[in-house]
Amino acid sequence: MSTKNNSKDVLIETASRLFRLKGYYGVGLKDIIEESGIPKGSLYHYFPQGKEQLAIAAINHTKVFVLNEIQALFDEIEDPIIAFQTHFNHLSEIIINSDNIGFPIGTIAGETHSTCEGIRMACQLAFEEWQAIYKQKLLQSGYGNEQATDLSITLNLMTEGAILLSLTNKSNKPLEIVKKQITLLLKKD
Amino acid sequence: MSTKNNSKDVLIETASRLFRLKGYYGVGLKDIIEESGIPKGSLYHYFPQGKEQLAIAAINHTKVFVLNEIQALFDEIEDPIIAFQTHFNHLSEIIINSDNIGFPIGTIAGETHSTCEGIRMACQLAFEEWQAIYKQKLLQSGYGNEQATDLSITLNLMTEGAILLSLTNKSNKPLEIVKKQITLLLKKD
Repeated sequence: MSTKNNSKDVLIETASRLFRLKGYYGVGLKDIIEESGIPKGSLYHYFPQGKEQLAIAAINHTKVFVLNEIQALFDEIEDPIIAFQTHFNHLSEIIINSDNIGFPIGTIAGETHSTCEGIRMACQLAFEEWQAIYKQKLLQSGYGNEQATDLSITLNLMTEGAILLSLTNKSNKPLEIVKKQITLLLKKD
Repeated sequence: MSTKNNSKDVLIETASRLFRLKGYYGVGLKDIIEESGIPKGSLYHYFPQGKEQLAIAAINHTKVFVLNEIQALFDEIEDPIIAFQTHFNHLSEIIINSDNIGFPIGTIAGETHSTCEGIRMACQLAFEEWQAIYKQKLLQSGYGNEQATDLSITLNLMTEGAILLSLTNKSNKPLEIVKKQITLLLKKD
């Protein structure tokens, strides 16, 4: 992720990483302060509403990071099936083969869907924007509007499910299987 | 779930419900004691190792409950496509249309994959047993072994992803879309 070195960015990046690994309730502000080396006063200067406000900033940060990664990949690879397979390949590498970066926003969404409306809405927006970039790629590749809508949601939920299973089973097999299955799903109507 | 009325079952059922709604770190033993009305001494009598041991019992309880539900449905409906569609229909009803029962084990798996090996292993086992019952149905319906393996993992990860998106977006659309897409996936090789 970004290497900008001001306190606000360091706080957001530290919080994003810890939330991805342990979820929202598994991380205290104390952990973020310790890991980032940023004093408590600065945290409350940038995030006067505390943990919830910082979590929403962390989710938006992860959302934009993922959007930029996908857009770069879609700009590079024209064929939609090869592009999505490369996307799952990349996920498989960063989630299992190299350092475990955790579950981008899935855990925090699962924890807060019924406990914190502000965070739930930030997660919903992230899922919707990821679906929108998938849909745009499918429309550009000649899929009809309804099929592109359905497929964009399907690819998003398969991504979330495959990451969860891969992390839990410490195996990239679920992500590898999705790569195989999407050739069936992406057949044009 | 079961209505057995002894303290151990009440503790497990209360813990299962709270973990499904708020995840592992979002629930304290204090919450489980308050909600269940079971005294702290009884909790430590049945679960001397405390919260982790109770969480593993809660995951196993949810695992068996889901296995029984799916087995009953598979016994009743022979056609695999109709059986899986009915399964997703049922999930759509209990997760969105009636009282929100939360994310069966997905949140707790996401929170603990890198923080608690005992809980991670209980979640892995639950996913594997759910996949095994899907696979058995597919084998009985004439799918080949490799296709049945791949499909059972795909159906499991689509279930997890669709529940997460449905809960986050407060909409059963993701579960409904999976119902449509599985006719493509379940075409025999």
